[in-house]
Amino acid sequence: METAPQHITPATGRLGVLFVGLGAVASTVIAGVELIRQGLAKPVGSLAQMGTIRLGNRTEGRAPLIRDFVPLADLDQLVFGAWDPISDTAYEAALKCGVLDRYAHIEPIAAALKEVEPMPAAFDQNYVRRLEGANVKPTTGKRDLAEALRSDIRDFKAARSCDRIVVILCASTEAFIDPSPAHQSLAAFEAALDADDESVPPSMLYAYAALKEGVAFVNGAPNLTTDVPAMTELAHTAGVPISGKDFKTGQTLVKTVLAPMLKARVLGLSGWYSTNILGNRDGEVLDDPDSFRTKEKTKLGVLEHILQPGRYPELYGDFHHKVRINYYPPRGDNKEGWDNIDIFGWLGYPMQIKVNFLCRDSILAAPLVLDLVLFTDLAQRAGLTGVQEWLSLYFKSPQTAPGVYPEHDLFIQQTKLKNTLRWLMGEEQISHPGMEYHED
Amino acid sequence: METAPQHITPATGRLGVLFVGLGAVASTVIAGVELIRQGLAKPVGSLAQMGTIRLGNRTEGRAPLIRDFVPLADLDQLVFGAWDPISDTAYEAALKCGVLDRYAHIEPIAAALKEVEPMPAAFDQNYVRRLEGANVKPTTGKRDLAEALRSDIRDFKAARSCDRIVVILCASTEAFIDPSPAHQSLAAFEAALDADDESVPPSMLYAYAALKEGVAFVNGAPNLTTDVPAMTELAHTAGVPISGKDFKTGQTLVKTVLAPMLKARVLGLSGWYSTNILGNRDGEVLDDPDSFRTKEKTKLGVLEHILQPGRYPELYGDFHHKVRINYYPPRGDNKEGWDNIDIFGWLGYPMQIKVNFLCRDSILAAPLVLDLVLFTDLAQRAGLTGVQEWLSLYFKSPQTAPGVYPEHDLFIQQTKLKNTLRWLMGEEQISHPGMEYHED
Amino acid sequence: METAPQHITPATGRLGVLFVGLGAVASTVIAGVELIRQGLAKPVGSLAQMGTIRLGNRTEGRAPLIRDFVPLADLDQLVFGAWDPISDTAYEAALKCGVLDRYAHIEPIAAALKEVEPMPAAFDQNYVRRLEGANVKPTTGKRDLAEALRSDIRDFKAARSCDRIVVILCASTEAFIDPSPAHQSLAAFEAALDADDESVPPSMLYAYAALKEGVAFVNGAPNLTTDVPAMTELAHTAGVPISGKDFKTGQTLVKTVLAPMLKARVLGLSGWYSTNILGNRDGEVLDDPDSFRTKEKTKLGVLEHILQPGRYPELYGDFHHKVRINYYPPRGDNKEGWDNIDIFGWLGYPMQIKVNFLCRDSILAAPLVLDLVLFTDLAQRAGLTGVQEWLSLYFKSPQTAPGVYPEHDLFIQQTKLKNTLRWLMGEEQISHPGMEYHED
Amino acid sequence: METAPQHITPATGRLGVLFVGLGAVASTVIAGVELIRQGLAKPVGSLAQMGTIRLGNRTEGRAPLIRDFVPLADLDQLVFGAWDPISDTAYEAALKCGVLDRYAHIEPIAAALKEVEPMPAAFDQNYVRRLEGANVKPTTGKRDLAEALRSDIRDFKAARSCDRIVVILCASTEAFIDPSPAHQSLAAFEAALDADDESVPPSMLYAYAALKEGVAFVNGAPNLTTDVPAMTELAHTAGVPISGKDFKTGQTLVKTVLAPMLKARVLGLSGWYSTNILGNRDGEVLDDPDSFRTKEKTKLGVLEHILQPGRYPELYGDFHHKVRINYYPPRGDNKEGWDNIDIFGWLGYPMQIKVNFLCRDSILAAPLVLDLVLFTDLAQRAGLTGVQEWLSLYFKSPQTAPGVYPEHDLFIQQTKLKNTLRWLMGEEQISHPGMEYHED
Repeated sequence: METAPQHITPATGRLGVLFVGLGAVASTVIAGVELIRQGLAKPVGSLAQMGTIRLGNRTEGRAPLIRDFVPLADLDQLVFGAWDPISDTAYEAALKCGVLDRYAHIEPIAAALKEVEPMPAAFDQNYVRRLEGANVKPTTGKRDLAEALRSDIRDFKAARSCDRIVVILCASTEAFIDPSPAHQSLAAFEAALDADDESVPPSMLYAYAALKEGVAFVNGAPNLTTDVPAMTELAHTAGVPISGKDFKTGQTLVKTVLAPMLKARVLGLSGWYSTNILGNRDGEVLDDPDSFRTKEKTKLGVLEHILQPGRYPELYGDFHHKVRINYYPPRGDNKEGWDNIDIFGWLGYPMQIKVNFLCRDSILAAPLVLDLVLFTDLAQRAGLTGVQEWLSLYFKSPQTAPGVYPEHDLFIQQTKLKNTLRWLMGEEQISHPGMEYHED
Repeated sequence: METAPQHITPATGRLGVLFVGLGAVASTVIAGVELIRQGLAKPVGSLAQMGTIRLGNRTEGRAPLIRDFVPLADLDQLVFGAWDPISDTAYEAALKCGVLDRYAHIEPIAAALKEVEPMPAAFDQNYVRRLEGANVKPTTGKRDLAEALRSDIRDFKAARSCDRIVVILCASTEAFIDPSPAHQSLAAFEAALDADDESVPPSMLYAYAALKEGVAFVNGAPNLTTDVPAMTELAHTAGVPISGKDFKTGQTLVKTVLAPMLKARVLGLSGWYSTNILGNRDGEVLDDPDSFRTKEKTKLGVLEHILQPGRYPELYGDFHHKVRINYYPPRGDNKEGWDNIDIFGWLGYPMQIKVNFLCRDSILAAPLVLDLVLFTDLAQRAGLTGVQEWLSLYFKSPQTAPGVYPEHDLFIQQTKLKNTLRWLMGEEQISHPGMEYHED
Repeated sequence: METAPQHITPATGRLGVLFVGLGAVASTVIAGVELIRQGLAKPVGSLAQMGTIRLGNRTEGRAPLIRDFVPLADLDQLVFGAWDPISDTAYEAALKCGVLDRYAHIEPIAAALKEVEPMPAAFDQNYVRRLEGANVKPTTGKRDLAEALRSDIRDFKAARSCDRIVVILCASTEAFIDPSPAHQSLAAFEAALDADDESVPPSMLYAYAALKEGVAFVNGAPNLTTDVPAMTELAHTAGVPISGKDFKTGQTLVKTVLAPMLKARVLGLSGWYSTNILGNRDGEVLDDPDSFRTKEKTKLGVLEHILQPGRYPELYGDFHHKVRINYYPPRGDNKEGWDNIDIFGWLGYPMQIKVNFLCRDSILAAPLVLDLVLFTDLAQRAGLTGVQEWLSLYFKSPQTAPGVYPEHDLFIQQTKLKNTLRWLMGEEQISHPGMEYHED
Repeated sequence: METAPQHITPATGRLGVLFVGLGAVASTVIAGVELIRQGLAKPVGSLAQMGTIRLGNRTEGRAPLIRDFVPLADLDQLVFGAWDPISDTAYEAALKCGVLDRYAHIEPIAAALKEVEPMPAAFDQNYVRRLEGANVKPTTGKRDLAEALRSDIRDFKAARSCDRIVVILCASTEAFIDPSPAHQSLAAFEAALDADDESVPPSMLYAYAALKEGVAFVNGAPNLTTDVPAMTELAHTAGVPISGKDFKTGQTLVKTVLAPMLKARVLGLSGWYSTNILGNRDGEVLDDPDSFRTKEKTKLGVLEHILQPGRYPELYGDFHHKVRINYYPPRGDNKEGWDNIDIFGWLGYPMQIKVNFLCRDSILAAPLVLDLVLFTDLAQRAGLTGVQEWLSLYFKSPQTAPGVYPEHDLFIQQTKLKNTLRWLMGEEQISHPGMEYHED
């Protein structure tokens, strides 16, 4: 195990948060942070704000709040900005997306929301067919777009007097692209950039711009974006942390605890059918088969990695896994998942588990965004660069170091995150031996 | 941590398994073991038979089957016996309870099932009002009943040439009794036994008889049985392992992974409504409010222990937990659970998770019985005495050492079990540190 | 068939609506009517307001709104009053019960809601154990209470210049009472009243007072109330219409269409398990087993009457019907039903239908209340007295003329209601012959 | 209304039943009829066998079994034959499709099932891409194929000494085709037939052959088949009854009672999302988008026709209706539907109904096939020719006379069927007037 860092730079000054995409998720984060600052709501769902961490032996009774244990930026230090192809302010975006109650949670903080106006986006409809927008940068070539984004970052930092910045992608899913030679090294990528190659979608322009500016980048969408060698190379060169991809919110969250349950009890799986209905902009974009293909990829991998068919061929060697997403406007931002899980037990007898999750997409995503911003900033101040695998807890398809397979089991992910925090602060790591009685 | 045992006695000879209760669960175990021996079915759900265990560093690639790693008794070494107030053989019990397919899974092994005839039970309708039976021992006083049971154990051991025996309680839930002074020490208990005190239900007679004979005892029902100081004292004196209580099969199994999920993501809980419908003898017994009260107690404790309201008062300080069981004959042995889970996230917004588990009671319980028999026998041969907390994985309400609270989180339970096996065999324990990449 | 009435008195002047119980249902009705008057919402769910009725042959294309076809009172003519043991105004009741959105649907009409202050109730905790209230009439004997209620009705009518009045019971379920000799004739009832007999619960005092004042009475609760010979005798003597009992809102509504579906396809039924969770005052009251017993009775009868086990012994002669209601505060006024229906088809093969109804108790009840008030007033002006069986559509357990069994099938109920309206207006009745092609 | 027929020819002699497609449905019908004949099972789900019909005034108490009321063929008179591109006998088909329990319901009648061997099919993979088969007629042109089928019918009739024959299509869904000029008249159709035009799929060859032989035809698939002017013209010319299309089994059956429920209560609809998972051959075929398109069409029309958006624009003018079918092998023949219904009530408040139907495709279809065969034969003996709209109860998308829209409401369909039977036998038709108390 690596040696823990000698020093973590203190979280002084202002931390700029730049959203790629000022839609339902970003506006829910911004509104939430403001409401929490004013004492009007609680940051439920945020491990960084409400989670505790056990330290030392159980008999010591030490279990501080995580935010009292590691030196995180305070909510009062956050400053928000964004890019979006639609020119709505955070106020207008919050009203339109219908996530928050207008009277209880938008109007009381309208002023703060109206301040966040999106910068013109580096947008290209070839990659997101179901969206249109007028607030876009002129299409003068991909290199120029990347430079314009870098300039936006510098300007924002100066104008808002930020000490540090994290860029986080909360935009719609792009059409599926396969990893190509252009993604295999930084040199190849920059050549593709100069050649306006189609293997460089807008999301990569944002990532490239951030990393070149020495700014950390988090990918909440299922696009490749930073999950290619070119970008990890750049992250290491630039000395910044990156992480992704695809926020683990509703159905996949449940999947990553039920699949480990089956394995813990060696119950067999013959099929898992997952369908989703959702009515927000995300649902509309995913109604396009090319965007869905990108999403499907991150959603399907989960079961294989958890269940290890190679190690359990009789139990998990032959299951049918289907994932469907349907755009269904009556749901609005309220996403609903229905899972039908066909299992078999003793002597092969079949049983079924059905899960109906009536969730809220942006409400589940917002605290993940806050945690990722705060922990990514911590990582940067602690000198951790490149892929942050300890943040796997937050992603449907965690980006890993090359050659390492992703960890999907929510409970292993949780242990990794907490043990990393303990390690950063020089505390002993915790496991669950059998003959003593610890607890996390 | 304790030192691992120097020596585990080999699993030679025959292992007798005595069931208290020859109903759906016991007959499904007996039939299953016979079918598996003949290659007609697989022991799905049995960790001892189909589970693997990772050893050493992940890069070593060592992950043997558990049964190849620890010296367990082989299925061919098992010999079955039982007590029951109804005189049906295992064959008749299997036919009546309707768990297994008659043509595929009962008739082909009818001979083996017919051999298992129940000994007369120590039965008392005051404790299980909805049952009646003619195959009962004369009611000559509780001390006499206990002695008769001891004599049964000795006779069975001799007649079937067993080396070792495990007694496992798979009987109907007894009416609720509060722990009383008679349960606080072995001396007090034996006095109560001699006085025919009502604080001594039949299940305790079986446990007492087993322990006095130096035979391990496992409690699959929610009754107190061995979960009182008198019995743990006797277990230590007699040098035998005990464990309990209440097999964790359907709804509670799911609860002990979903509640940790909520906590891992600091999502709040406002209510959890669990209802069950089942149509077997167990359901009929639980239709009696006194029996249900016993069951309710083991089912309700789970959430409090996992969610730690004391540590998370804003999230888990005020949730409504209801558990209902309804006797509903159309279900037969197919138990069905419906859970409605009311959670709240970011800024307090409510969401719902609904889980419908169409399970099979005895199919889920049977492999737990097999594992508990095999692991309890292992524990005895390894010299582990008293409460076996490392077997918590199998119980709704794990019995613990005095003063230690039970571990309900399925994944911590699993880690404890596997680390205990590693410890027994002198292998290194495994945790999930953050900066390296292990996996269990 | 009876001859249609020669004359229906026009709906001139003001129609007083007196609620027994100013809780969630009544306040939702009052608020709704005011919002509709102001054009701020629609009377969805009200047949009287939004339903149409086909007239004549289908080729005629005549399908007016019901309110344009029969002479109903206009919403502007309604005047509201109430009794309740809690002194909250309709404004306070609406806020507390949490049915309506405060900013969208309560504050804009606060003035109208604040005007409705409850008169002191004839309340007796012996019949509703889970409620308490200070706004009650002195307990000077049942006769005196009845007289005080009569006086309230007269005073309200005078003070608010009403032409006509309908009293509608929207109060909590009373403890179960069996029909007794005191209910068999008006004379016996009045003797019981004078003797303060326990067979006279408060709801009967309200009904008696209304009928004695020549005022129509509707019973929305499952109590007997008017469903006894004494009251039907009085209704005929007084020349007023009555109807009841128990508004058919969520689960039973669905039951009365799915059961006819099974019968239409001669699919067998082996069991129907219905559970409800609700968190409002109604749920709290029904947590008392005595009140639940009253409710259970109206909920259980439905299937037997629809499925006719006598006529279909092989299909419906032996099904298990369970109904459960659980008080579960997280739901608030949002009632949730879960039905598990075990059916069997061709050669006896089993299948299951599961229905999860996430409904809103008062939102479903409110339009029924409005319809019942308007149609009852119509009946009175048309000279129809006694039990109004044509209003069965609205009730879980429709009160019938003696010796006639209730009609539960929603579609037959609907046809009866519409055909009664046609008959009242001298239009031809409509059936669905096979060789022509009509439609309703 | 038409005059009832003077005479219905008695059901003497043998009735041949020729299935187009000897798969799950046909083999389940054949096995069932044999089991019923032998007293080993009941014809549950068959109105013709187990349904009753009320006659006259309710006080008369007349409610005979339908089969005792109208002169239907007896089960002992049925003789089965089939075409199929796969050469499995009914015995092999029954084993493979996994609908019936082998030991209880197939082996005891194996001999009868083995007798039914399929004749070579008129098969064309252009119309059913996911199927392949060797038991096919040589592709010598469409006219020749039609003539070969006619010859098959004649030969079967002679060989099995049948008095009358009904052909019923129980085959896989064909790829979608739009109605074309070739379907507009018999002359145009026959020209297309001679020209091997692609507008003539195999299903039309079977229909054409049957009608030309004076044999009645029933279409259980969603293909157009007889639902074109050319075929109705031929049916009238040939004097035979036809009906279709697409058996109304699981999800649509429920839809056609829940939608009428909403309308009866004027509850609004904002969306209806229906998804299906099934694992049989039908599911595999429908995984092909072209076949699904055919099916989708018959499934989507239902709501519009029932809810009449034109008459209720505020309630039903703007709902989202999605229907999805997913091939999911773990289900086998057990089809599962999940419906999510978003409704709104009083003042527009939203509510949800969710229906999970765990059904069995062929078990639901089999009694419909039996009824359709028996009632179609009755129609033919009664001289009813052309489209039999009174059999709409059995179809997802009932074929109607030109210009008449289909009736989807299950209860109106039921009334039409029963009133047609009453009319055929000279009994009075029954409606449900409001002021008297009839019951169906």
